[in-house]
Amino acid sequence: MVIPAARRTTTPSPWEPVGNRAQQREVKRNAVLQAAAQLFNERGFHATSLDDIAQRLNVSKPTLYYYVESKDQILLECVRTALDLMHSGIGEVRAAGGSAIDQLQACMRIYSGVVMQDFGMCVIRIGEDPLPAPLKKELRRVKAGIDREFRQLIEAGIAEGSLAPCDPKIAAFMLAGALSWIGRWYRADGDLSPEQITAQAIGLLLNGVQQSAPAPRPLRKKARP
Amino acid sequence: MVIPAARRTTTPSPWEPVGNRAQQREVKRNAVLQAAAQLFNERGFHATSLDDIAQRLNVSKPTLYYYVESKDQILLECVRTALDLMHSGIGEVRAAGGSAIDQLQACMRIYSGVVMQDFGMCVIRIGEDPLPAPLKKELRRVKAGIDREFRQLIEAGIAEGSLAPCDPKIAAFMLAGALSWIGRWYRADGDLSPEQITAQAIGLLLNGVQQSAPAPRPLRKKARP
Repeated sequence: MVIPAARRTTTPSPWEPVGNRAQQREVKRNAVLQAAAQLFNERGFHATSLDDIAQRLNVSKPTLYYYVESKDQILLECVRTALDLMHSGIGEVRAAGGSAIDQLQACMRIYSGVVMQDFGMCVIRIGEDPLPAPLKKELRRVKAGIDREFRQLIEAGIAEGSLAPCDPKIAAFMLAGALSWIGRWYRADGDLSPEQITAQAIGLLLNGVQQSAPAPRPLRKKARP
Repeated sequence: MVIPAARRTTTPSPWEPVGNRAQQREVKRNAVLQAAAQLFNERGFHATSLDDIAQRLNVSKPTLYYYVESKDQILLECVRTALDLMHSGIGEVRAAGGSAIDQLQACMRIYSGVVMQDFGMCVIRIGEDPLPAPLKKELRRVKAGIDREFRQLIEAGIAEGSLAPCDPKIAAFMLAGALSWIGRWYRADGDLSPEQITAQAIGLLLNGVQQSAPAPRPLRKKARP
């Protein structure tokens, strides 16, 4: 007996194809990290439990363990992802070249943008402090690399005459500090968009808050008596 | 029989007079808070135990309990002391009056100075996050008050024409952020004194990092052909 062609098709598997499954797993893993980052940022790292994270995602804690090993590992991934974003973004700006001041502004935009995202906020609000020493060290190395890029751009800006002479180390810390602080006070439900905040922040840091000396008035000899 | 006068003097007590004892207790209590703040700033709050604090002071943990109740209470006092210092310093500047820009600079100096001290560094590096909700709320109220003073001074500076028009809320956050960050990177064994760092920080924030437009060159008509 010939089996009708239609019957020969494989019974559809209730499991997704392997490729899809890997992708689905990645999507879900990211959702775990994102939910965790949001909770860390809202409540603090120590006040957030794996149960809290599971609850927010409507899953059980054992399900979480399918995607992540521990709270420490989650924090590590959140912070590392954000720092990698900054680092690679800055790397692209540097590779593209251009004037130091334009590069500096582009790097400030990247930095500011990242600290307003969940993972970037985690870098600022939680940081690497709760992690064991070797991981702390790894993340601090990445941070130091970002600091160094800012410092070098400031040195180059002074050399090209676009930046005022200053101590590049202090200036880099001031820029990074003011931009980092955005990750402390930024609220997604605030009045300004991340782009508006970034533009204002960069303007203030480049030009300062002080009113610059008024442009010299045109001589008005004729008006004199 | 008459007791010789010399014998009538009281046997010296091995305990200090009450007044001295209270003073001694205060000195020792401060030493506990200071040692704790230093350890929190070095290692983080959660990684520091009361045993660590006792060990640094060469005393037993029960001795510590004579001066403080808990690690939470220590952090509260460290952060509160620093915030009170800022708050009262800023209050004095405001009461003394003067132009908004002068007051703003004086307040920035106070803020910057405090974040380089042990307790102030604690505000930046640890903050109120590890504390229970009611204490957190109390400290955030003090912080919000400090923010408000900066914002009002910036508004007044714009009104008097000494500051460039800007969003006072963002500007206040940028100033406070850059100055707060000093508490993250400052090291007492660094090259610059706190006063030098403060002066550079204020200069950068007032004038910006960008080279301002070059002063117009004097006309040199005579040199023209």
